[in-house]
Amino acid sequence: MEQNQILEIKAKAEKEYEALCAKGLKLDMSRGKPAPAQLDLSLDMLTHCLDGECFSENGTDCRNYGVLDGIEEAKRLCMPMLGVGHDEIIIGGNSSLQLMYDTIARAMLLGVLGGDKPWSKNEKVKFLCPAPGYDRHFAICQSMGIEMITVPYKADGPDMDMVEKLVSEDELIKGIWCVPMYSNPEGITYSDEVVRRFANLSPKAKDFRIFWDNAYCVHHLTDTPDHLLNLLEEAKKTGKEDMVFMFTSTSKISFPGGGLAVIGASAANINFIKSQMTYQTIGYDKLNQLRHARFFGDFEGIKAHMLKHRAIIAPKFEVVINTLEKEIAPTGFGSWHNPNGGYFVSFNGLPGTAKRTVELCKNAGVVLTGAGATYPYGIDPEDKNIRIAPTYPSVEELQTAMEVFCVAVKIAACESLLK
Amino acid sequence: MEQNQILEIKAKAEKEYEALCAKGLKLDMSRGKPAPAQLDLSLDMLTHCLDGECFSENGTDCRNYGVLDGIEEAKRLCMPMLGVGHDEIIIGGNSSLQLMYDTIARAMLLGVLGGDKPWSKNEKVKFLCPAPGYDRHFAICQSMGIEMITVPYKADGPDMDMVEKLVSEDELIKGIWCVPMYSNPEGITYSDEVVRRFANLSPKAKDFRIFWDNAYCVHHLTDTPDHLLNLLEEAKKTGKEDMVFMFTSTSKISFPGGGLAVIGASAANINFIKSQMTYQTIGYDKLNQLRHARFFGDFEGIKAHMLKHRAIIAPKFEVVINTLEKEIAPTGFGSWHNPNGGYFVSFNGLPGTAKRTVELCKNAGVVLTGAGATYPYGIDPEDKNIRIAPTYPSVEELQTAMEVFCVAVKIAACESLLK
Repeated sequence: MEQNQILEIKAKAEKEYEALCAKGLKLDMSRGKPAPAQLDLSLDMLTHCLDGECFSENGTDCRNYGVLDGIEEAKRLCMPMLGVGHDEIIIGGNSSLQLMYDTIARAMLLGVLGGDKPWSKNEKVKFLCPAPGYDRHFAICQSMGIEMITVPYKADGPDMDMVEKLVSEDELIKGIWCVPMYSNPEGITYSDEVVRRFANLSPKAKDFRIFWDNAYCVHHLTDTPDHLLNLLEEAKKTGKEDMVFMFTSTSKISFPGGGLAVIGASAANINFIKSQMTYQTIGYDKLNQLRHARFFGDFEGIKAHMLKHRAIIAPKFEVVINTLEKEIAPTGFGSWHNPNGGYFVSFNGLPGTAKRTVELCKNAGVVLTGAGATYPYGIDPEDKNIRIAPTYPSVEELQTAMEVFCVAVKIAACESLLK
Repeated sequence: MEQNQILEIKAKAEKEYEALCAKGLKLDMSRGKPAPAQLDLSLDMLTHCLDGECFSENGTDCRNYGVLDGIEEAKRLCMPMLGVGHDEIIIGGNSSLQLMYDTIARAMLLGVLGGDKPWSKNEKVKFLCPAPGYDRHFAICQSMGIEMITVPYKADGPDMDMVEKLVSEDELIKGIWCVPMYSNPEGITYSDEVVRRFANLSPKAKDFRIFWDNAYCVHHLTDTPDHLLNLLEEAKKTGKEDMVFMFTSTSKISFPGGGLAVIGASAANINFIKSQMTYQTIGYDKLNQLRHARFFGDFEGIKAHMLKHRAIIAPKFEVVINTLEKEIAPTGFGSWHNPNGGYFVSFNGLPGTAKRTVELCKNAGVVLTGAGATYPYGIDPEDKNIRIAPTYPSVEELQTAMEVFCVAVKIAACESLLK
């Protein structure tokens, strides 16, 4: 692109930016939050699911103490989400983040099944962090002083050559974070080959674990959804099933503030986790488990419910993609992936422009996820990745926000090219 | 007591025991569980509290993510339970045990406010454990390898001479467990002097904490309830307020499986805890917080509700005390305290008889809390304490169970005296 062309784009963008700033916008696209209309889909759960009685199908009074791993009907509801069996699941509270944090805290303090000591008794603990990834995963590691090693993404998942090499060489690498389906933020689903290579990892650390956060397992956006191979099943074939911790939740199915979180793992892992977890709690909220089981009925009920979510949010993803196609594609100022599901569009601008873009948006009243947040320690080495979370604003708000975004991308790119 | 008198009591008791065994009883008095009739008191909460909308008074959508420390109206509801202010409280999930476990886990892994390193970086961590006490407190310590030092109870609380001496001498003592009101299982409420001595402790460890589990703060059984001095207020007078972690829950007010758990502490402690807790969860279940706030209205609502509980369970405590008075008092085979509140009657038999008594009860179909459970490591040095939990069985079942219990006490005592 010639310099006068850049100057022209920049002048036009700055004029548009000024006009948008004058609107006094106040839009928050910083987190992957469901919109109110999505939450309304589950409202009946709060009033009509416990109006008869509060006993589970096997006669447990869900109001009282007990049942550490969850009531049967809640297990049955959630088992197909992770593809696990009756003895391979624990139904938790309202937060899968909490289950993941607690799993790492227990590993640090007490150790995992088959480990000869708690992780924290090593001189150091390291985690592999495919990036861009989920900032809250990385924040858990950072809070506990776990050293993070960034692993880049390829088109079908993390760079497995690098993963295999690192875990086979370094005994201090105790885990890896994965969002294997409609990954946060890339929207990538791991290929069968990548999943099989995970199932066949040979870590030097006997107490190494794959943290498989399958948060978007039923969160499809199109008629041609991605398909994810079942890591636990694949790991059983290699005899390495104890290497796998899987997580999901109904946070973006029912309610972010009041859903069910789930751990899936081998029966041996589940028994071991329960033997540690029994000191922490007598049991999670069984009334909420009963609500969910009765409201959704079964996994088919969840799938039908997800179509209603899709009807609300798919048009929002279209706004994002269409605006990017129209405004940015012709300039070459960035690239993105059109995901088949999940909650995000990951935008990669020109190197050195992400922070500036986010700043320009903020000054125009549009708050995005902080630049760098998708990388360990909040540092994007190329300063180019921005996570776009389209679900919460209305379509109209989103359209305006994307106009702001594209104008900001153009200004930041031009400034960078003119340096 | 003369030998033939003992033999006579024993023979009579054994005959009665045989008859009771023949009844094929199946009664569980092992845990302090509310009875179904108590849980029915809060049933409306599950159906009629969220049927309008789900917004908190300040407009927060309780269905969505956010609000780590709890919604305002839930805080306001629970603040008087612990006697803390707006900035001195966090509303948690359904389990105060989990809040206590997590608080210790964070202290071990990350450290507490003002500490220079995580507890676990010391060669060893020790806790003072007034005993008999709550088995799940002791189990947390045991699971984390924290060494427990037993402190005996006096009539008005733990032996404070011993507590003061130990904490002032040993930097490895990082905490003490207290159930200061209607203590589990003794039913004792700490005297004002004991509370003031706690508020004025001078521990050698700068990162020492008092774990003040005020589980029974509103659980009165009589018209002359005990009164507990506010430890946090007292500690403010000595400038030592950061030494105090307080806990309570609505588990035995609303639902054990679906109540609200609460942490109270100085504003500085609360801010510090939130700065650590933010890595674990985005927020606890705000829908359940809203349910509770709307159902109870305010603290007066909780107090009125507790009178309904009292109407159900006070007669059960009477059965226990009356049966002990009638059957055991004349023999001198044991002693007990008639509590003004709480969930237990603590029975102290002749030394060396608790295990045998529990065994005899079990063989007759009455399951009690295991003998020794009320002591660190499950070892009652004198083998004499048994925790009686009268709330769950019906009055009729309880009457039968207490007959079994008294007969078992007599047999065990006679066997012991005849050795």
